[in-house]
Formats: sequence, C-alpha cells, structure tokens
Amino acid sequence: MVDLQYFPLPGASINEIDTPAIVVDLDVAEANIARLQAFGDANGTSIRPHSKTHKSPVFARKQIEAGAIGICCAKVGEAEAMVAGGVKNILIPNQVVGSTKITRLVALASEANIVVAADDPDNVEQLSAAASGVGKEIGVIVEVNVGMNRCGTEPGEDTTALARVITDSPGLRFDGVMGYEGHTVAVRDESERRANAELAMNTLLSAVDSIEAAGMPVNVISASGTGTYNITGTMDRITDLQCGSYIFMDGDYLEVFQDFKPALTVLATVISRPTSDRAVLDTGMKAMSIDRGLPIVVDVPGAQYTSISEEHGVMVVEGDAQRLKVGDKIQLRPMHGDTTINLHSHYFGVRNGKMDSVIEIAGRGRFR
Amino acid sequence: MVDLQYFPLPGASINEIDTPAIVVDLDVAEANIARLQAFGDANGTSIRPHSKTHKSPVFARKQIEAGAIGICCAKVGEAEAMVAGGVKNILIPNQVVGSTKITRLVALASEANIVVAADDPDNVEQLSAAASGVGKEIGVIVEVNVGMNRCGTEPGEDTTALARVITDSPGLRFDGVMGYEGHTVAVRDESERRANAELAMNTLLSAVDSIEAAGMPVNVISASGTGTYNITGTMDRITDLQCGSYIFMDGDYLEVFQDFKPALTVLATVISRPTSDRAVLDTGMKAMSIDRGLPIVVDVPGAQYTSISEEHGVMVVEGDAQRLKVGDKIQLRPMHGDTTINLHSHYFGVRNGKMDSVIEIAGRGRFR
Repeated sequence: MVDLQYFPLPGASINEIDTPAIVVDLDVAEANIARLQAFGDANGTSIRPHSKTHKSPVFARKQIEAGAIGICCAKVGEAEAMVAGGVKNILIPNQVVGSTKITRLVALASEANIVVAADDPDNVEQLSAAASGVGKEIGVIVEVNVGMNRCGTEPGEDTTALARVITDSPGLRFDGVMGYEGHTVAVRDESERRANAELAMNTLLSAVDSIEAAGMPVNVISASGTGTYNITGTMDRITDLQCGSYIFMDGDYLEVFQDFKPALTVLATVISRPTSDRAVLDTGMKAMSIDRGLPIVVDVPGAQYTSISEEHGVMVVEGDAQRLKVGDKIQLRPMHGDTTINLHSHYFGVRNGKMDSVIEIAGRGRFR
Repeated sequence: MVDLQYFPLPGASINEIDTPAIVVDLDVAEANIARLQAFGDANGTSIRPHSKTHKSPVFARKQIEAGAIGICCAKVGEAEAMVAGGVKNILIPNQVVGSTKITRLVALASEANIVVAADDPDNVEQLSAAASGVGKEIGVIVEVNVGMNRCGTEPGEDTTALARVITDSPGLRFDGVMGYEGHTVAVRDESERRANAELAMNTLLSAVDSIEAAGMPVNVISASGTGTYNITGTMDRITDLQCGSYIFMDGDYLEVFQDFKPALTVLATVISRPTSDRAVLDTGMKAMSIDRGLPIVVDVPGAQYTSISEEHGVMVVEGDAQRLKVGDKIQLRPMHGDTTINLHSHYFGVRNGKMDSVIEIAGRGRFR
C-alpha cells in the first residue's frame, strides 16, 4: 500500500506537518548530546547512550560522532536496526533468551562488536554454543542486581561464579559487569537520589572487587540512567553511562532536573470545539503514552490536557486559550518520551521552527 | 533492512513463536464475529464493526463476509489500509480536519463509499469544497454529544442546523447521525449500564426527531460500543452498531460480561529467574498497554504480573509457578486490546493450539 501521508519539504513551517506527529528540535537534541559527552569527557567516563529512547541510527550516529563509545540496544531487533544504520559497537544491557534471538545476535557479530548482559548460567551456555559453533566471539557482561530487584545476579558468590562460567566459555569474552540503578533515577530530591544511587553503585563495585579478587579482569563497569548521570558518572571506576532519555528530555525527567533541555513534542490538531471551555485534539493514547501521566500543553496559557482516550485528547480551555478553533495546531510535551516514540514511525526534525528532515524510527516495534 | 524476525510455519506449536508476540485464536475470534452478527440479524440492527481494534483488513473481511454492512475506521490512514484490503464501505465516526487529510479522504471515494462524522460547519464547508471540487460525493453524519462530553453537537437546534448545512452542501450527502455512549460501555453494573446507555440513546433519538421534523430524512443512526451492544442494539430506530473490542475481548471488558470469549493473548518469555519468587518476562510497555491495568497471567496458577517497565515485566511466583525457568513461554491477557495491538506489526493466528497464519496489522500507526 502506498503511504499517502504527507511529509512537508525542508524549510516548511511546523504547522504544515500533519498530525499527530513527533517534532524534534534537532539543535536542542544535539546540544543535549554535546552536554552529556562534555560531562563524560571532563570526568573520564565514557558515554554509551541507550537507543531504546530514540530507536534511530540517525541519532545514534550523532551520539557516536560526538564521542560516544557505542550504543546500548534493548533488544536484538533494535540492535539489527542500529547495525544496519552503521553502528559498530553494540551493548545489549538485557538478557537475550531463546535460540532464535541468540542466533540473530551472534550473526550481528560479523558486522559489529557485540556485548550482551547475562544473569543465568544456562543462558551463557547457549550463547557460547551459538557463538563458538560459527567461529565467532561476543562479549558478555554480568548484570548485577543493584537494588532495582528486576533482573541480575546478587553481588558476591553468584556473580563471581557466573563471571567464571563466561570466562571459561568458548566463543565468549568476559568483559565485565553492569548494574542499572533504575529505582533511583527519577527520585525528585537530589540528596536522596544521590544517596540511593551511590548505594547502588557501591553494590556494583563490591561485585567487581569479588570478581577481580578471583583473578578475572573487569574492563566494563556500565551503569546509569539520565537521572543519575552526574552521580554515577562522577564515581571512580564506573567506565560508561547508559543514559537514553537525556537526548530529548521527557516531561517526567524535567521534574527531576533541567540539566538537559526538552527537544521533543507531539504536534496535535484541534478537531472539535463543542463548547466554549472544551477543545478536543486528534492525539490520544495511540500517538502518546500516558504511563507517566498526561501531556503538558506547550505555550498555550489557559489550556490544560485533562483526559485521554484512544484517538482523542480533551483540553479544558480558559481565557485566551478559548480562541482556539478547529484546525489549529498545538504542541504537547509527553511525560515519557521512550514509550511515545515507540508509537510513531517518523520524527519530524526542525531547526529554528522550520522543517529540516524526516527521520525514520527504524527500531520502532523491533521488540524481539 | 531485512527483517530477520522468525515467523513459524503453519502447523508449528505456539511455543515456536518468538516473543513478545500477539497470539489470536482465530476460531474464537470468528465465533465472536458470528455471535454479534447473529444478534444484529435477530434484532434487525446492522453491524458496522470498528477497525480501530484489529487494524487489519483480514479481520474486516471476515466481519463483512459474516454480514457486516461496512467497517468503521478511526482515522483516514486506517481507512486507506482497509480500502487497500478490499473494504468497500467505510464510516469514519470521527472528525477529519485539515486539508491534507480531507484530500486523502475524498480520494478514497473513488474506491469505496465513504461516510464521515462532523460537528462543525467550517469543517463541513471544507469537506464540501474538497469533494465537489473533484466531482465526488461523500456521506456525512452529524456526531451528537450523547453525554460523553467529548466531540459532538448538542441535540436540538445546533444539530439540526448542521444537518441543514450538510444537506445544502455540494459534494456531500446527509446520511444521518451518530452518538457514542462511550461513558457507559464499561459500567460494571448491568442495570446502571442499561439506564445510562438508554438515556444516551434517547438523547440521540431526540436529535433525530428534530432533524426529521425539519424535513430531512435520517437514514443512519449509528452508535454503540461492545459493552452496550445488547442495550443499544435492541432499541428501535438504531440502525447500526460500531462495536470493536468484541472480536478479541479485552481483559477489561471481560469484567463487564462474558458474552464474547477472549481470543487474544501476548506470548512472553521468561528471561530471568533471579530469586525463587521472582520471574522476569521480556514483555513490557512497548509490547503491551497498561492504560486499563496490568495483564493477567493465563493458565499459570501462582504467577502474578506485578510490575512493568518499558522492556520487562516482573512476576511474583508461588507454588507450582516457581518451576518456571529461563526460556519458558507464557501467555498474558492484556486489559486493553486496542492499545496493545497498536504496538505490534503482526498477529500470530492459531487454531487448536497450532500456528495457522501470520496476519499483518496493516493499520498500525496509521493515526493520521
């Protein structure tokens, strides 16, 4: 089927973009990339941004050109999209389970350096068999539970034992450890966030101590989300940061800090003005996630997004906002970028308020 | 980029499907289609199912072959997918706003009978100019606010005046009215649901009375969601039902009634067993919506899905469920099918527990 959706040419006004659409201010996104990289350079910590946020090799290449050592990918399908887009250094900071995915993972090692997390000896055995069976090598890091209580080995004997299994497995290269302090990244209070994140990282470093004491070198100690970049990233021995959201900054993260600037909105059209105090938008749950709350209306004082359904958003409008009429376009800032981006196939990149380029979200839906 | 994701051949076991994946029991879905159609036939009410649920012309054709008079589509992009798949009768029960979308809408009238809802005279004027400008005709129905307080004119003068504008507009055919009693469809108590839905439908019918009293024939009186099919569908004068979710039945709707059977699950893989009481799945918010709550674990007593993040789901496991190991697959029933389906590109259709066919979700992401 031919896609008749209309993509405005470079130089067009934002208002020529049909809606719902994700609009990214590329200058702001690039400044965020530069800012995190400068932080890493100043602190001797590498940047390894997570592509689960942007899902686009275009943005991954911008991050690498700025100095990132590689890209994190949530799933093998996302990694395939990044490798196809020219990324040569991939870390999957998640478990890759099942023969289909493991076969695809190993195939990627022909084109890129592949590193994957593991927390289970049987899974390691399968990774080893797949890689060695075709004469390839992939890196494996142990995921350590640093307090989030999701995946990961407990620090101590279990972690060291798994490091040993990896070290001894043909086709695998033991690269080190990771720990995601996801339970701390959105803590609003800075001192509480710092205390929790440092506790988590000390847990990770205690695991490193045990592994090194057992005679295995730990080259990678990878961690961090956007909300803890300036805590985890200033701790000695942490080698690289996995931040994702910093590139666009969600509405939710902006409540944590404003170190990075918001670059992303969802453009919406008013499709109904049934009463003086109600305006209905064409942008509902199929174009914007609500897992961290309803979106914020940008630059329309008196307009508030108050309820959402699948295809509609209802705004209560007061004062000047009551001038909104059917056909008017407004920008919404989603509270959670990653899950909103996952609903779209394209970014509409703008600079200085004008269309710059359409960027495919090549990793969208590649959750296998 | 070549999509290396693995699609098992017909006859394969469900467990050969890689995850996360939407699995549809085609026999159950077809029985749901037949059941609603039989209800409509018995009550003299037409069925016009909503494709915003399934987003697939394959399922739309099954509904039409069973006797549906046409298909509802939420957006022009969804209608393009349905027309490309052979659907000849489309109702968009939403406002289509803006010149790009209106141009595409009118273009579809070359291949299908197109009917669209409207609640604004300027919008009607634009529809008229676009259709008459290329010598085509589209049907328009007035959306009436029946108490949901989203879009729609108030019944009475406003509604009758808009019907007159449509009737007098070149290129447009005034077909009638619609009213969506969306505020009533999920009311758990049956008598309360009935009272609310009947009140809403009487509001709609009062608008019909006014329009007919003004001398305009009302051929279409379209309404209903799945939860009110047997209330709205037994009222005199309602011509057709717009139900969508009945085809697969969400976890949420199953708490309203069990008139239709659940046909859809999301298949997930256990990727981590870090503790005896915790199992982590590869299926999070990017593969399953949570706007109506966390999913239900199907047929694994002792396992409960307790928290979700973007790429992971955490289950607490007790008793026999503690036997789950890394690599095991389980089925989850999402609470909301429509927003879950919107995250996927394919259905894995099964019959009697074996792979039958892969069905593209052609309307996914076509929200413009």
